[in-house]
Amino acid sequence: MRVMNKKALAVLLVVLPLAVILTYHWNSGSISAIDIRGRDTLKNLLDERIRHMKYENDNIPYRIKENILRTLAINGCVCESDKSLINIPFAQLLFSQVSATQLNAMFQGAELQRAKQYRNKEYQSFRERTFTAADSLIIADANNPLQYPTQGVEVRPTRTILIPGLSLNVKSKERQHLVELTATMGTFDTAVLVDGVQISGEGEMHIHFVSDSLALLNRQLQFVTYTNTQFHPNTADVVQFKTTGFQALFTIKIRHPPMPTFYNPGPKKDYNVSTLVTIATKTFLRYDKLQDLIDSIRKFYPTVTIVIADDTKDPKPVKGPYIEHYLMPFGKGWFPGRNLAVSQVMTKYVLWVDDDFIFTSNTKLEKMVDILERTTLDLVGGGVREVTGYTANYRHIITTDAGDEEGDCLHIRTGYHHVIEGFPNCVVADAVINFFMARTEKIQKVTFDPRLARVGHLAFFIDGLGTLHVGSCDDVTINHASKIKGMLPWGQSETDKAYSAFRYPSEKEENVNEYDLYYLKNHFKCITSD
Amino acid sequence: MRVMNKKALAVLLVVLPLAVILTYHWNSGSISAIDIRGRDTLKNLLDERIRHMKYENDNIPYRIKENILRTLAINGCVCESDKSLINIPFAQLLFSQVSATQLNAMFQGAELQRAKQYRNKEYQSFRERTFTAADSLIIADANNPLQYPTQGVEVRPTRTILIPGLSLNVKSKERQHLVELTATMGTFDTAVLVDGVQISGEGEMHIHFVSDSLALLNRQLQFVTYTNTQFHPNTADVVQFKTTGFQALFTIKIRHPPMPTFYNPGPKKDYNVSTLVTIATKTFLRYDKLQDLIDSIRKFYPTVTIVIADDTKDPKPVKGPYIEHYLMPFGKGWFPGRNLAVSQVMTKYVLWVDDDFIFTSNTKLEKMVDILERTTLDLVGGGVREVTGYTANYRHIITTDAGDEEGDCLHIRTGYHHVIEGFPNCVVADAVINFFMARTEKIQKVTFDPRLARVGHLAFFIDGLGTLHVGSCDDVTINHASKIKGMLPWGQSETDKAYSAFRYPSEKEENVNEYDLYYLKNHFKCITSD
Repeated sequence: MRVMNKKALAVLLVVLPLAVILTYHWNSGSISAIDIRGRDTLKNLLDERIRHMKYENDNIPYRIKENILRTLAINGCVCESDKSLINIPFAQLLFSQVSATQLNAMFQGAELQRAKQYRNKEYQSFRERTFTAADSLIIADANNPLQYPTQGVEVRPTRTILIPGLSLNVKSKERQHLVELTATMGTFDTAVLVDGVQISGEGEMHIHFVSDSLALLNRQLQFVTYTNTQFHPNTADVVQFKTTGFQALFTIKIRHPPMPTFYNPGPKKDYNVSTLVTIATKTFLRYDKLQDLIDSIRKFYPTVTIVIADDTKDPKPVKGPYIEHYLMPFGKGWFPGRNLAVSQVMTKYVLWVDDDFIFTSNTKLEKMVDILERTTLDLVGGGVREVTGYTANYRHIITTDAGDEEGDCLHIRTGYHHVIEGFPNCVVADAVINFFMARTEKIQKVTFDPRLARVGHLAFFIDGLGTLHVGSCDDVTINHASKIKGMLPWGQSETDKAYSAFRYPSEKEENVNEYDLYYLKNHFKCITSD
Repeated sequence: MRVMNKKALAVLLVVLPLAVILTYHWNSGSISAIDIRGRDTLKNLLDERIRHMKYENDNIPYRIKENILRTLAINGCVCESDKSLINIPFAQLLFSQVSATQLNAMFQGAELQRAKQYRNKEYQSFRERTFTAADSLIIADANNPLQYPTQGVEVRPTRTILIPGLSLNVKSKERQHLVELTATMGTFDTAVLVDGVQISGEGEMHIHFVSDSLALLNRQLQFVTYTNTQFHPNTADVVQFKTTGFQALFTIKIRHPPMPTFYNPGPKKDYNVSTLVTIATKTFLRYDKLQDLIDSIRKFYPTVTIVIADDTKDPKPVKGPYIEHYLMPFGKGWFPGRNLAVSQVMTKYVLWVDDDFIFTSNTKLEKMVDILERTTLDLVGGGVREVTGYTANYRHIITTDAGDEEGDCLHIRTGYHHVIEGFPNCVVADAVINFFMARTEKIQKVTFDPRLARVGHLAFFIDGLGTLHVGSCDDVTINHASKIKGMLPWGQSETDKAYSAFRYPSEKEENVNEYDLYYLKNHFKCITSD
């Protein structure tokens, strides 16, 4: 007996810890495989419901208001050139005329077919990854005795929340009151138990409450919890809330909330441009102009970091305190260089300048910091002053219209949306000139597409639509080093000539230009601009 | 008379075109200044409504379910170490123990005060810029005769939409039926006119419908339009929909929809790794290992582009077809180098490798492309095989809990969420090892924070929470060049010694480490990890 007990004890001493270890690590693999190939089950459920809504009054006639109907773009969008309203000499000098470009026109035959197939496939995957059931249309039925939350219910992945606002308000005196909740990506439970309410399905995807007393049922409904059990980093579940004869649908977002990205201004007590701003630029061949820029910066901001992306063939060293010089493969390009420079910025704001700009006493970066600190703007442009005295701000408005399977319509116009309250020299627009200060985390989020090698400007702002709140102030200016001399044939240095030869793409080069990208990358079918 | 007429005509010929030009350009400046200093008027409206809801049943008692209540984290979150449940020898070898770190502990006195002030201020601005009225809680009243859309109504900035689903379903027989709609960032109108309905406020922020016939009123309500007049690139308006004795609230999102970012695989008919993938890496000093990596890649993928970020002090050239070599300031660092390399990628996917990895016949990039093409994953990691045969995948789960004004709680555990249906060798996690393929547009959106100079790994995945859907497959592996020789003192080359001296931060260096960033950048107050 004692031998048996010792053996049994020995076995236990080995088996028990192992059993504990196994149980401890059990959780990691216990959930069965989950399909993430993007089927729109929940979105289909919501679409079905919309399709089956009754429209009882469809026989009642109406008179159409043409001007309003036109703004609705019910059959998709089109891009049309302006027909000239006034036919006078020099009309084009006096009025900007809108021109339209169909973006698929650059493709022919089999290549066009392939481009269309590719675009459709990519757009479908994009929609699956980007839109959730929380974006779908839900319409609340009238006279529903159910009270429930219609928006704002959110749970972090794998976590639990209390569902607010659930209640049943039947007017009729019924013997029994019944409600049920169903979900697909999580389970329900209750944080408390109220006597007089029968619950079935605690901890399951379908929970059921019954009570003779409406007051008791509603007290119980104040404490219903939802736990996300089917992991996803950013999606939404649809909850069906039912009682006898009535139903309501609402979504619960399942996601990590947007992640903050703050920049510590550092231990210094001063709140100054050097701790908050990094100056970024790209250079190619024009070391003399670059040095003029650096010297002009140092007159006003001796310790601000300057990040330089350089794709010159035989690069020269650019040295000095607070200067970071990055060397790229020869001729890699304009937007690659911009993206590189911005990728290295460690301060809250980044100031973009071209390498042929010159700081003056009007280049007050403090003003730009001020408006970015005090408003919801993400980017603020200034003015670039030519040697003639003319100051350009390149303010543009960019709008889009929902189109068809071929894509959306893109509209670019000079102008701005509105003046900014409290900042009378500043306006809100959608695109500005190449002299701007921006929140680093936002500009890094949008990125300068490295596929644009030679020319590109608006592409950045188009990629930024919906992400960037853009402004432009005309009381902060920078000088543009004289181009006049460089434009005259006898005024060009050897460097100028080499620069010009490279800067503007030859026809033979297989460059990606902005229009290619609007079609292939951003899913636009046409563009109008003035 | 004739002289007068000529003069008048001359004046007209000058004035009229000018007047036309002025009228033509009038629109650009006619809207008055708009305040964008981020006041939460609409969110306050919704919060007020929630606060004033009646809770009639508050006297009814209940029994608490402790286990459920605990998951709710009602009073914020805490980070606690595991108390050891089983006190046996070698417990730590058998069980991972969870340790907790309070992140503000690194700051003292005045520095802590400044850090707190800064964090609070930044968090308030962040919330103003990031959350809209569409994120606020709205609860639908029961027994409301109004039918209306509770989610899914969206309009592009400055555009017009039809509001779906508006209807009045009163049961009682009233003499007159009345509804009104009010908004603050746009105006209402109607696309059609139904006889027998009186409308006032067309084109204004408050519109009013009256009719003796409910059917006529509801027919009219099928055609109500909303036009965004107060520009904002990404916000939401709150619509108040009222009838006698009842009200409903719903939000209309005003935004550019998420912008697609597609990558054209190019004119080739083949759909292969070289057109879809770019390999990115960072190197420092270890040119021999880097060359071994490149040679191993070329055995299997002779034409795939390799982007190399290099911050060696006296860099050597790294040449070859499809190789791009970028030179950085000496010792700029690890995450800056990662961010630089990724900023130059022009293909749909980017594969990250360390410079001391070696490709083998098991390094099948096609498998990684396949799962990214066919699922909603944004990033998929593989396994890194050490010379001992042990293969690491570094799978981690990262969860967060909502905290208080000090910040949220961050929890890091080894493990994964679930297996992927259809891909039995693959799982979903939140962080993986440094050998992964990712969608370029997503990885560029998250960015590798250039403030992490020496060490960092999980920081990238934490920045990616909510943005990246992360997976890990154990059937794609890469070899790690032998470290054993390099770890023994007599096995180190001069280069190895210089590398080690630089790689690991000395105590004197004022480096930003990951924990600094979790506190200052991501607004966490504490972290637990196993």
